Amino acid sequence: MLKYQELDRTALLKEQEQCRNQYEKLKARGLKLDMSRGKPGKKQLDMVSDILTVLSTPEECIADGIDVRSYGTLSGLPSAKALFAEILGCRPEECMVGGNASLNLMYDTISKAYTHGLLHSEKPWARLDKVKFLCPAPGYDRHFRITESFGAELITVEMTPDGPDMDRVEELVKDPAVKGIWCVPKYSNPDGIVYSDETIRRLAGLKPAASDFVLMWDNAYCIHEFEGDFVPFPDILTLCREAGNPDMVFEYASTSKVTFPGGGISVMAASEANQKYMQKLTGVQIIGFDKVNQLRHVMYLKDKAGTLALMKRHAAFLAPKFHMVLDTLEKEIAPLGIAEWQKPKGGYFVSVNTMDGIAKRTLALCKEAGVVMTPAGATFPYGVDPRDRNIRVAPTMPPVEELEQAMAIFCVSMRLAALEKLLG
Amino acid sequence: MLKYQELDRTALLKEQEQCRNQYEKLKARGLKLDMSRGKPGKKQLDMVSDILTVLSTPEECIADGIDVRSYGTLSGLPSAKALFAEILGCRPEECMVGGNASLNLMYDTISKAYTHGLLHSEKPWARLDKVKFLCPAPGYDRHFRITESFGAELITVEMTPDGPDMDRVEELVKDPAVKGIWCVPKYSNPDGIVYSDETIRRLAGLKPAASDFVLMWDNAYCIHEFEGDFVPFPDILTLCREAGNPDMVFEYASTSKVTFPGGGISVMAASEANQKYMQKLTGVQIIGFDKVNQLRHVMYLKDKAGTLALMKRHAAFLAPKFHMVLDTLEKEIAPLGIAEWQKPKGGYFVSVNTMDGIAKRTLALCKEAGVVMTPAGATFPYGVDPRDRNIRVAPTMPPVEELEQAMAIFCVSMRLAALEKLLG
Repeated sequence: MLKYQELDRTALLKEQEQCRNQYEKLKARGLKLDMSRGKPGKKQLDMVSDILTVLSTPEECIADGIDVRSYGTLSGLPSAKALFAEILGCRPEECMVGGNASLNLMYDTISKAYTHGLLHSEKPWARLDKVKFLCPAPGYDRHFRITESFGAELITVEMTPDGPDMDRVEELVKDPAVKGIWCVPKYSNPDGIVYSDETIRRLAGLKPAASDFVLMWDNAYCIHEFEGDFVPFPDILTLCREAGNPDMVFEYASTSKVTFPGGGISVMAASEANQKYMQKLTGVQIIGFDKVNQLRHVMYLKDKAGTLALMKRHAAFLAPKFHMVLDTLEKEIAPLGIAEWQKPKGGYFVSVNTMDGIAKRTLALCKEAGVVMTPAGATFPYGVDPRDRNIRVAPTMPPVEELEQAMAIFCVSMRLAALEKLLG
Repeated sequence: MLKYQELDRTALLKEQEQCRNQYEKLKARGLKLDMSRGKPGKKQLDMVSDILTVLSTPEECIADGIDVRSYGTLSGLPSAKALFAEILGCRPEECMVGGNASLNLMYDTISKAYTHGLLHSEKPWARLDKVKFLCPAPGYDRHFRITESFGAELITVEMTPDGPDMDRVEELVKDPAVKGIWCVPKYSNPDGIVYSDETIRRLAGLKPAASDFVLMWDNAYCIHEFEGDFVPFPDILTLCREAGNPDMVFEYASTSKVTFPGGGISVMAASEANQKYMQKLTGVQIIGFDKVNQLRHVMYLKDKAGTLALMKRHAAFLAPKFHMVLDTLEKEIAPLGIAEWQKPKGGYFVSVNTMDGIAKRTLALCKEAGVVMTPAGATFPYGVDPRDRNIRVAPTMPPVEELEQAMAIFCVSMRLAALEKLLG
């Protein structure tokens, strides 16, 4: 097969006719497939459902000397803090264990920055004329939307294979209106990129003009390898402390893709000074998060080793799905020269960059044929991809056989969109 | 026994000596008793611990056509919304079911009023020069602290046996800076007062100057009778709608004192227009609350009848404790004329008003003798009781035998404080 760009008009038209026939046939099947969100598949959820009954008696509810059924213990069950601390490589005192959504903890951090200010804020952000926030893109739409919702100006920073473009980040933070940056340091959403040691070192060592600049460190996929062994990662809290920025970072993680997305637990890790400051504010909001569920997780996961062993079992479900996606792209799209993509070893996505200007059209064609994907542009601030080329493929939810059909539709849709573009 | 006010100095001194001896004897026991917070006792928690295992298989996790283990369903599991709607007397579409803390839902409402504004706000409250909030007192310290934390000016409104002083409320809401009022309409914290129909009707029919005035309706004890049968209450959403104020009220409730304080579920009920507006904002914050726990509650409580039956079983633990407190006060304190108190039939507190100026001293003496109570003043805005007389007794947590000792210490402490005061 020749690259599309090398074909003459006649060959393109012939290819278009073939693709159209293929597309119509697939469309006629009337499928309804969802590759829009990074959700674990049903078999993964079934696999971990023993957690439902791991805590079963009143006697077991007394843990760390605390009756988990009662009020209190704002920062979380000590053993749950220890579990997350071991996984993240920080100290238990640096952890506050929350409810089922780390997103909510991130939102609360930004919200409190606006209403009360962070530890080193001169005033609450709501009282500032201008707040800017750095958004490495492609990135996670829900991150961007949090800061957008509070009225911050979102500044796109390009992603490189090593993480955010650090030359640009270091330049941008000289502006005192720049208050923070969103980061997914391991298996980034959607690229699946692992930030390099050098990038992480430069992020920890930033010298921002704003005294309350915040590294929003969403370590959502820190133990989420689907291929190969667990890849250790440095503790960002330690790195920031060593770089003289002990209070600059807030790290987040959760068990959403370890146990249940709808019923897991989450953590916010930060310096003890930050914890003291934030927990004083959080204590106005809640008496304590769901400790019953925290204890369930401690009993079920036990420790880092237990958690990593479970992640290997998740990987057994995930790897065939990612291979299906990557193999299909390699076979169907690579020879045509109309797209490039990362080949991640962990995380929940495959990020595809098509030739410029066809991502939206590709997904419109997919939708018409019954395949829902994350909307084009969603991975950029304000939902606008300036080159209209990034597509986030989320292959984890459908069974492999459905995925095969969805990928067939995705590939032929992309080919059609490319041909339309090339034929003008 | 004579009233203290009727005793001459010699008699008072004699009484003081007797009390001191009694106090020292009790103190010498070195007790450590906690009557500070409205927590269910251990036996209550044990009684409901079957909820831990009510949901046990993957198959059961598919409810209302939804896999509760997965992401999504922001407004809550339909059957959980139906359960709360039946209890509150509103419609399921008017409910958003949250995590384990209704306090967090209240905080989020106020927080969003500040950062984004409510449905009928001209601008976010953070951009206003002045926000005032009405605080019927004695009231719930955590309510007051939420609005205080955002910088609102707290205005004390006196509680009457029928609820907040409505003449004053109607006068105060003419000020456009007055943005809302905190209410606990049934078995108010701490007085245990049930707002009269007339008070509720007047609250629902308020004509505030502020277009975004909010009735913060914390129905925390709506099914929490410990004596007698369930007392029906009117649906505040309906009353507000009928009075032409459909979007003025946000109602809150939870299962914190039905199942587990540390692992229950909560609800925010409001007009559909409010739900639409607030859920759009909440969707930025969280993908969905813990639906696994919502399903557990639906399976365990079933419906209103099932829930009320359970509350009867709670009452069997609570009634003896309240009787102990009320009987002891009646016997030890009533004849002395140094305090008055409500005689609630539900809720979690007994609110005692001592003679002016001795509440703090009474609790200091209690503490010295090993009994911790809610700090004096806590039931008033800014923690300052202008008459230093209100004491919130929380008798639910300790077993009856401990409670008996704690009440002995409480009564003698109050007598000593009164005698000190009278002797000058």
